[in-house]
Amino acid sequence: MSIENIIPEKTIERLSEYRRVLLRLKDNGHTHLFSHTLAAKLGITAVQVRRDLMLIGFSSDTKRGYEIENLIDFIGKVLDDDNIINVGVVGMGKLGQAITRYFSGKRSKLKIVCAFDSDPRKIDAVLDDIKCYDVNTLEQTIKEQSVRMLILCLPSSEARRLMPSIINSGVRGVLNFTSAYLNFPPEIYVEDYDIITLLEKVAYFVKNSKD
Amino acid sequence: MSIENIIPEKTIERLSEYRRVLLRLKDNGHTHLFSHTLAAKLGITAVQVRRDLMLIGFSSDTKRGYEIENLIDFIGKVLDDDNIINVGVVGMGKLGQAITRYFSGKRSKLKIVCAFDSDPRKIDAVLDDIKCYDVNTLEQTIKEQSVRMLILCLPSSEARRLMPSIINSGVRGVLNFTSAYLNFPPEIYVEDYDIITLLEKVAYFVKNSKD
Repeated sequence: MSIENIIPEKTIERLSEYRRVLLRLKDNGHTHLFSHTLAAKLGITAVQVRRDLMLIGFSSDTKRGYEIENLIDFIGKVLDDDNIINVGVVGMGKLGQAITRYFSGKRSKLKIVCAFDSDPRKIDAVLDDIKCYDVNTLEQTIKEQSVRMLILCLPSSEARRLMPSIINSGVRGVLNFTSAYLNFPPEIYVEDYDIITLLEKVAYFVKNSKD
Repeated sequence: MSIENIIPEKTIERLSEYRRVLLRLKDNGHTHLFSHTLAAKLGITAVQVRRDLMLIGFSSDTKRGYEIENLIDFIGKVLDDDNIINVGVVGMGKLGQAITRYFSGKRSKLKIVCAFDSDPRKIDAVLDDIKCYDVNTLEQTIKEQSVRMLILCLPSSEARRLMPSIINSGVRGVLNFTSAYLNFPPEIYVEDYDIITLLEKVAYFVKNSKD
């Protein structure tokens, strides 16, 4: 397994943001926009926008700017899979439930197909049409349901305990909401998303701001 | 108002992570650790750890490594405020409620004191001891309750509409869960935390991984 011709992570993030802006503009009846307009809406430079779009091979009619609908399709070809990606949520506590609900219906190409928990009261329950499985069946259930991506919302110590099952399950991507550093092998892409760290960061800048 | 002697954002993030690791080790009875041990637990280099700690002026007994309790206190002096920072949550939908619940009791120096929503059924309700106010009273309520930091969990368009009230309210930090780019003046520190962008990023690497 190898990752080839990969676009830098930061560019991928920005492409996702570009698309969000473009979809909104399209909904409002716009058909074209210039790189500097897109840049201003995201607080970055026009050079950055042009560099990112050059990287994915998109070129524009410079007189009227980028054609919005074209660019949306183009970004979609880079970001989206032709097939739906099945997603599993591990840990159906408050955060897991909120993410599941927040998520449902938001992205047609990503689909939460199952959830996991260790609490007997949650196992076999159905939340927003998603069935919750015993976390001890994780490896098997992921294989059966062809899950390719996991969202981890369980306690850090639990996440560490589950690592071997996650690795063996064959998933390829993990969005890690726990505060644990999970040292997965390189074939599993991990994005850490720790709320407490960011809260402490904002708090640091708040306490150092002077009125 | 100015921000002086500020430590780089990435160092602040890592200090928060170091502390989390150190607290866990302390709980398990450890008293000392080396930079390379700390580094390995976070998947970074020992040089990075030493550089960060040098930056905050912490030096160690190199024979036995860093003294854990000392280092926890030292990081606390950098990250934590002497006073509690009052926090407000704007938008009490599924995500806002989850964050409020997830948050409560997690950080003694940060305290959610109020929430805001536009839904008449939520206004004046109390969730986990936190009262929900009419979002139209945001500026006034923030001032009355000495809120210094906001967590935004409302729809993007709503967030944009509220920007003038947020700016006038005097808050100094914003954790932005909406997908809107909010162009606040420099005295307000903003951390963007958009779930959809990260999901799309993980999905991109999932679809480009080959089995």
